[in-house]
Amino acid sequence: MKVRIGLLGLGTVGIGVYQIIQNHQIQLQQQVGCAVEVSKVLVRDVKKKREVEIPEDILTIDVNDIINNPNIDIVVEVLGGIHPTSEYVKQALKNKKHVVTANKDLIAQFGQELLKIAKDNQCDLFYEASVAGGIPIIRSLVDGLASDKITKMLGIVNGTTNYILTKMTNEGTSYHDAVEQAKALGFAEADPSADVEGFDAARKMVILSSLAFSMNIELSDVYTAGITNISKEDIEYAKQLGYTIKLLGLTTRRHGEVDVSVQPTLVPNHHPLATVENEYNAVYIYGKAVGETMFYGPGAGGLPTATSIVSDVVSVIKNMRLGVNGQTITHQHNKRTIKTKDQIFSKYFMRINVKDEVGVFSKIANVFLENELSFETILQKPNLNDRGAEIIIITHQVSLQNFTNSLKAINQLPEVIGVQSSYRVE
Amino acid sequence: MKVRIGLLGLGTVGIGVYQIIQNHQIQLQQQVGCAVEVSKVLVRDVKKKREVEIPEDILTIDVNDIINNPNIDIVVEVLGGIHPTSEYVKQALKNKKHVVTANKDLIAQFGQELLKIAKDNQCDLFYEASVAGGIPIIRSLVDGLASDKITKMLGIVNGTTNYILTKMTNEGTSYHDAVEQAKALGFAEADPSADVEGFDAARKMVILSSLAFSMNIELSDVYTAGITNISKEDIEYAKQLGYTIKLLGLTTRRHGEVDVSVQPTLVPNHHPLATVENEYNAVYIYGKAVGETMFYGPGAGGLPTATSIVSDVVSVIKNMRLGVNGQTITHQHNKRTIKTKDQIFSKYFMRINVKDEVGVFSKIANVFLENELSFETILQKPNLNDRGAEIIIITHQVSLQNFTNSLKAINQLPEVIGVQSSYRVE
Repeated sequence: MKVRIGLLGLGTVGIGVYQIIQNHQIQLQQQVGCAVEVSKVLVRDVKKKREVEIPEDILTIDVNDIINNPNIDIVVEVLGGIHPTSEYVKQALKNKKHVVTANKDLIAQFGQELLKIAKDNQCDLFYEASVAGGIPIIRSLVDGLASDKITKMLGIVNGTTNYILTKMTNEGTSYHDAVEQAKALGFAEADPSADVEGFDAARKMVILSSLAFSMNIELSDVYTAGITNISKEDIEYAKQLGYTIKLLGLTTRRHGEVDVSVQPTLVPNHHPLATVENEYNAVYIYGKAVGETMFYGPGAGGLPTATSIVSDVVSVIKNMRLGVNGQTITHQHNKRTIKTKDQIFSKYFMRINVKDEVGVFSKIANVFLENELSFETILQKPNLNDRGAEIIIITHQVSLQNFTNSLKAINQLPEVIGVQSSYRVE
Repeated sequence: MKVRIGLLGLGTVGIGVYQIIQNHQIQLQQQVGCAVEVSKVLVRDVKKKREVEIPEDILTIDVNDIINNPNIDIVVEVLGGIHPTSEYVKQALKNKKHVVTANKDLIAQFGQELLKIAKDNQCDLFYEASVAGGIPIIRSLVDGLASDKITKMLGIVNGTTNYILTKMTNEGTSYHDAVEQAKALGFAEADPSADVEGFDAARKMVILSSLAFSMNIELSDVYTAGITNISKEDIEYAKQLGYTIKLLGLTTRRHGEVDVSVQPTLVPNHHPLATVENEYNAVYIYGKAVGETMFYGPGAGGLPTATSIVSDVVSVIKNMRLGVNGQTITHQHNKRTIKTKDQIFSKYFMRINVKDEVGVFSKIANVFLENELSFETILQKPNLNDRGAEIIIITHQVSLQNFTNSLKAINQLPEVIGVQSSYRVE
């Protein structure tokens, strides 16, 4: 028996996949008990000079040589994008080919539909590399689900924003300069909005929370705030209070109700997530049986992503040989139930600029009292030239509803110049 | 087809394994494609009252009902100890039963021999739960080996010592009091020496380094130093310099040569290992393809350990059905080659008490010069009542040979009262 793979795309990741499979024939055979080969590769130009030696007769410019080829068992998709990629993947699944992909946009948007097609055709659709390329997080969620119940997950799942925040925190770089440095190093794209606005992280949280809670979470369920408004002052005050600001994906479940968000969060310095720096990713999981676990590693990169894809390919082949394809992770048996604002509780950080007058603080305290909000920490700064005096507050646990009401009421006080920023506190 | 498991031992972990398998029949079947049952359980007393409901007819006091029973496919060993456990495991393997164990002493001491017997009988011998119960570290090493080359591994692999050091660091507790607190909480045994002297961690590093480098590392290869001499002063100075003291297992490979140690180490506060607190464990891996990854979680505990054992059982059953038992991880194809002292390089911390005299420092500097050792950081403290003045040094990279020579020479200087402590710096 020999398993035949069709590769859609031959960029950095595709080349990595090809090389790993070529160079680890013996180890792969030991793991899966049969031979594995890359039989066809979709490229744009067969004659193009490449950094990898690859027999020309396995290259093709016609996608049908792969997705409609009865000899291909597994399709590895590293083209990216939604169209025509989603159509290719659908066709492959309908032809009973297993699919491994690194495409987070595809999975976040069409995951449910594709997983259903996969299941109906008894096929596997695996996508480990779509979230945090170098970390086996999806595997851990899927395998762990058999024996643990997850209550909460926290993730640094976007390397670009983590790099920018690390520069701002460690070197006092401004947001603007940090973005430019990230671009220069290739960590950020020319238009970095998908990253800095939190959309990329939101897609990954859709994938992770859907898996963790076996629920069909949609992108519109994710409250998403990016890092574009984080100032040096916010970072400095957080530091003084013993926190590091990170763009965190958060998802929790209580009594079957779930919330999912991506937002800047103050993480206590002694929390393992606080030390995840630069372009690294990490996912922190709270499970009922196992307790707290964290997986840390590179979020992207050609080799980590390719390694992750090959691990998925190995799982697909094992499942083929066990006759259990299409049985894991595809069915989401819990009804989608999203928490309302009065069911979401957290601590919050606020930075408020006020007129330097007697009685300001008692006005703010009254707003807090009316909204059942209490203070954990208060830091009052003297008059700052044109910004008035500054009050920094960390609250105790409060519902998002009450917190939002307080924010609004404080902003309306005549003594308050403005709430400069407010962030969740972990 | 039904897979039958024999369980040796029914303590906390054994009960956990029994319950997970009983309560997850459907999920297990989905993963492995066949039914799984616990058919026999070895206990001391069949009539004893237990916290778990378990049919009396599957209990036995005769080990032969399991290890010599032709109907048993997999033996799960949670008895602990070396004798008669090793004899039981050998007999089971010779009878072509796969074995899953959580027994680190057994694997560190008899791993090679048992793995060879397993291989000769085409059996799996899996032991994920023997190192850092709640973390899938062995699985990651074994699966990862197919496509990555590990160059270095750092581990906090003993929860007891990490708890003690956390108390000393965060609360200024003395070593003695922290040990007593750990005992009271059940984190330390009445005689804590296996933990505090580093022996437990050394056994785990034998297991991890043997796997990572595919080499038969022995316990005597591990340079082992415990935490019994760490003082509040050491922790305090480390803090001032931006470090946290951890008992780290370390193993590195360069040009095929390996070193393994367990020793107190100053970890920079921004390193993810610095935030691993209390009884938690973590393993940090440097791989050529994937880069840096870290796995963090509970090091022990009934449920995490049981969960880990069931994951191994699932892998064994998959391998049974794939016909690839006894093929992974058992063969260690690299010749055991341990670095000599002049091949091991690191930075070091030293705390030296000196007579408060002119010229002391230049004497120490001369010793450093003679041994090709240079300073990275120097902290000189004023005269401390009866201990003289105190000099704290962090060196640049130096060979262990040269560092040891310097230590000796400094201790012999008439102006030096004594080197109070010296630790590796990560």
